[in-house]
Amino acid sequence: MQALLTRPALLASGWPRPRNFPHNCHPFRAESHFSYLVGRQLPGAALWIEPGAARLYATPPDPDDRLWHGAEPSLAELSSELGLEVRPLAELAERLDAASLPPQDPRAAAWLAERLGRRLPPSSQPWDARDAALADALIELRLCHDEAALEQLRQAAAITVDAHVAGLRRTRPGEREAHVRASMEALVVSSGMTLAYPPIVTVEGQILHAQRHDRQLAAGDLLLVDVGAETPEGWAADVTRTWPVSGRFSATQRDLYDAVRTAQAAAFSAVRPGARYSEVHRLSQRVLLECLIQLGLFSGSLDALLELHAVSLFYPHGVGHLLGLDVHDMEDLGDRAGYAPGRVRQQDPSYRYLRLDRDLRPGMLVTIEPGFYQIPDLLSGLEPGGPLERALNRERLAQFRDVQGIRIEDDVLVTETGHEVLTAALPSDVQSLERIMAG
Amino acid sequence: MQALLTRPALLASGWPRPRNFPHNCHPFRAESHFSYLVGRQLPGAALWIEPGAARLYATPPDPDDRLWHGAEPSLAELSSELGLEVRPLAELAERLDAASLPPQDPRAAAWLAERLGRRLPPSSQPWDARDAALADALIELRLCHDEAALEQLRQAAAITVDAHVAGLRRTRPGEREAHVRASMEALVVSSGMTLAYPPIVTVEGQILHAQRHDRQLAAGDLLLVDVGAETPEGWAADVTRTWPVSGRFSATQRDLYDAVRTAQAAAFSAVRPGARYSEVHRLSQRVLLECLIQLGLFSGSLDALLELHAVSLFYPHGVGHLLGLDVHDMEDLGDRAGYAPGRVRQQDPSYRYLRLDRDLRPGMLVTIEPGFYQIPDLLSGLEPGGPLERALNRERLAQFRDVQGIRIEDDVLVTETGHEVLTAALPSDVQSLERIMAG
Repeated sequence: MQALLTRPALLASGWPRPRNFPHNCHPFRAESHFSYLVGRQLPGAALWIEPGAARLYATPPDPDDRLWHGAEPSLAELSSELGLEVRPLAELAERLDAASLPPQDPRAAAWLAERLGRRLPPSSQPWDARDAALADALIELRLCHDEAALEQLRQAAAITVDAHVAGLRRTRPGEREAHVRASMEALVVSSGMTLAYPPIVTVEGQILHAQRHDRQLAAGDLLLVDVGAETPEGWAADVTRTWPVSGRFSATQRDLYDAVRTAQAAAFSAVRPGARYSEVHRLSQRVLLECLIQLGLFSGSLDALLELHAVSLFYPHGVGHLLGLDVHDMEDLGDRAGYAPGRVRQQDPSYRYLRLDRDLRPGMLVTIEPGFYQIPDLLSGLEPGGPLERALNRERLAQFRDVQGIRIEDDVLVTETGHEVLTAALPSDVQSLERIMAG
Repeated sequence: MQALLTRPALLASGWPRPRNFPHNCHPFRAESHFSYLVGRQLPGAALWIEPGAARLYATPPDPDDRLWHGAEPSLAELSSELGLEVRPLAELAERLDAASLPPQDPRAAAWLAERLGRRLPPSSQPWDARDAALADALIELRLCHDEAALEQLRQAAAITVDAHVAGLRRTRPGEREAHVRASMEALVVSSGMTLAYPPIVTVEGQILHAQRHDRQLAAGDLLLVDVGAETPEGWAADVTRTWPVSGRFSATQRDLYDAVRTAQAAAFSAVRPGARYSEVHRLSQRVLLECLIQLGLFSGSLDALLELHAVSLFYPHGVGHLLGLDVHDMEDLGDRAGYAPGRVRQQDPSYRYLRLDRDLRPGMLVTIEPGFYQIPDLLSGLEPGGPLERALNRERLAQFRDVQGIRIEDDVLVTETGHEVLTAALPSDVQSLERIMAG
């Protein structure tokens, strides 16, 4: 890291966030850039880096706290564990001229503002040149995962696969969504991991990030399940499967499911070094659209329908994103990590929700997650008599009313020669899912 | 509430707290005072109350958000649901002269500071007179639970009881603590509730709030389990049981377990309207000390040992605390809720960790949770040759080395005539626990 820096930098880890009173906190999770460089979820700490040197400033254990939380390592012990000079955080009292990055924890933001004599603007606002250089150095480090990171990411993927199998086996008509969620979360917690993001376990798959879990599962429903584990060190997995509550896909569900799976397979095949991610996205759109035309949902030529952004009516989001310490890796930096220098997010319906447009390199980990959703707002928002309304076959669509939402998402590593699906141990074909559900 | 106020007040609900990037938030939980008055976990909202009137200011649903999170009620719908005037939060732009309370969410604190033209001091600092009056009005309301609150608290207690039964049944030598935790959490999540506080599931019971869950369970261990559910509306339960990993208490474990249980029973019996809670605490200390003398751990007269704070060597914390929307109810206000006007926390070892000293009234809900712990720091910290060292029988104590920590905690409602243990459905006697574990 020091080699990439031309000036000092200061990165905070954050403090535990009180939930409803000061001693009742959300589980602590250090800021990702700090975690990446220090490798430890250490509250109340900051890393000072300058060309050729690095020092950790940490909060010494409070003796009065031992009664409640047990013994914590002293700063000297921490220093020898980490192989890094460690000093008390309080020693960092003066004003410092350093680059930094806006933390998620407001207390850390206030602390940094005092140390630096300036407020760090949120990443949606224009960047300070110093901070931009630091962000770019970290992006360069974090874009491609080394072996130690991959080991963590494989562990998260493996537990996530097990959690989905547990969810498949616990799905029953008459239970609530929360029941399936709980069985999956139990597997993650039991392994010592945590959830990388709020789980989506929903019969309303058309709500892309549905957060309710109180619906009852009915035999005809598809259940969309987007759940991923995070290792204690903070590395994430991100996996979605969609399965039938009854244990058997209907013919219409199977048709659309296979369409999404075909689009995913096409996207997989395009993941290799040098490929531009927006082209992977584009390919997934094209292949899904071909399938939808074959199913009779659209009439017209492929090219004309692509021009109309027809596929975004049913697949409005991007094919995926970076994955690493964050489930949308480095999204705290806005699009700075996801979009290569010189590229900006397009606003047309085919690209506006695409979070990544870089040329792929070995060691990058991305999700591949096409979907199909019947979203009332989109379906009712077409221009009456317009070209897309004319191309859409609503009578045919009505036959697919037992499909609210389907998403299939896997974690795909770019290798030297192509790609490796880290979550391949979890099947996604109709037959295998049905077999797992049958026990 | 308005009747208790002499001037306007403004209470914020808080915003979702980003975990590692802006779109990945901790589960939202509204500030408790807001929840209490509005009855709804509404992010980005504030309640304006003045004598004779109340208005809710809320964030209107963002149409772009529907794609990701589904439809949210409009402000008009919210108004008719809540029976309360609702206006957009942005309308509260001017400076307001109002009382308020310091929220846990720093974003809400900053928002309030702007609205009020002043920063609210944390509750550990001297109070502004306006805010103090508001705090006291809320304390008066929240100290005694009405039927609607009790219904919620009973629900939380019932699910918590079920979770402990699940934990008892899933405890096995060779498993990890996380395995038991996961089985309990699954029961809570499956019911649609959440955890009221970070769960303690530990073979190191001597660490009062142990947060690790990675130890392996050995047949001779006691497992200390402090887990409570919270309803979606935010009401908490708080229950601890301690059980043997093997399914059978050893003779020494049973002796000390029964001592703690005897102290708990004595404390229960003292809970009634008019009783002073510090006396309940004192009684639990006295009874536990009698048991420890009987077991031969101390020699000397009861009164002399009480004078020496002998029991605090093994039972250093308070007998309990208020319970309601917060697991330590209203602890966001410091000791203002727990200590009656004119009473302050004593600093001697018998009382320094006592969170509550009020005269009990019908409708108050408190925990009763004595314990016994072998805490190395306390046991090694005695004055050599001092009176406590001389009174302690270390040879006898060595025979109890298979007891690290025991705590038994139940939720006890003060009734018109005495008390009701809301968590009585979960047995705490040795035989019943062993029977549940045997399946």
